[in-house]
Amino acid sequence: MSVTDEYLRNNAEYVKTFSGPLPLPPSRHVAVLACMDARLDVYRILGLREGDAHVIRNAGGVVTDDEIRSLAISQRLLGTTEIILIHHTDCGMLTFTDDDFKRSIQEDTGIKPAWAAEAFVDLDEDVRQSLRRIEASPFVTATTSLRGFVFDVATGALREVQASS
Amino acid sequence: MSVTDEYLRNNAEYVKTFSGPLPLPPSRHVAVLACMDARLDVYRILGLREGDAHVIRNAGGVVTDDEIRSLAISQRLLGTTEIILIHHTDCGMLTFTDDDFKRSIQEDTGIKPAWAAEAFVDLDEDVRQSLRRIEASPFVTATTSLRGFVFDVATGALREVQASS
Repeated sequence: MSVTDEYLRNNAEYVKTFSGPLPLPPSRHVAVLACMDARLDVYRILGLREGDAHVIRNAGGVVTDDEIRSLAISQRLLGTTEIILIHHTDCGMLTFTDDDFKRSIQEDTGIKPAWAAEAFVDLDEDVRQSLRRIEASPFVTATTSLRGFVFDVATGALREVQASS
Repeated sequence: MSVTDEYLRNNAEYVKTFSGPLPLPPSRHVAVLACMDARLDVYRILGLREGDAHVIRNAGGVVTDDEIRSLAISQRLLGTTEIILIHHTDCGMLTFTDDDFKRSIQEDTGIKPAWAAEAFVDLDEDVRQSLRRIEASPFVTATTSLRGFVFDVATGALREVQASS
């Protein structure tokens, strides 16, 4: 049995106590953008209830065109206004470089990705980079609060990264 | 007080019972790609424990270059092999068209996004589209299981979408 099959059995249990449906627009008008890391249970970390907030996640919690797309849809069509960014300690994105990663793919497959891998060397600096990319986007304009944090995988705590420095 | 501030107070409570740190690589070797919809608490829907699986999320749960980037990093650097795709009923992506959305942005800002909004008209068809984009990628090659589902926001149940049709 695959792990997927095991998770489907878990879902059958989930259904037994499920109460829905909730409305489509996020009730707290928040969008969270976090790393895909397995240790970040974003709903528990922030105390989100189902229906509260959009949750966008990718390798690193970085901002590329696809996160701008998601945030634009979140704000323009579904009324969110606050954005919370979450990077974290012990992140895999600190362990390689774009050049090495793309070289390795090229050697294995013969094809070098046309996209950036978005590896980074400093957590706080990359949170600030993500803040700035959002601020610079002409498509994400309804923001009333934009703040970035580093989640500590050893303690569970969020530490805010100051935008200016 | 902003909602963000409220969530930070929740995090202070979370820290009190947090036990960590867990290892970086996902222990169950799974990557989940789901819609950002606020009603999808992916950890609860699948019964994921912290540390189990990468969780990638965006508007629609679609596959663009950024999801290929995240999946390539997940598989090549962190050893995942199973992929679970999750779309859901009552999805916002069913409520607009790319043309109208981008026209609205252009009228408001003067700039038309160079990216696709990735709206879709049929849930099952778009799950199959996501399956095919992953199968077609030269960069996501370690997959041992790739399955797509529609989450029912009224019942909490996952329904599998058959790849061929």
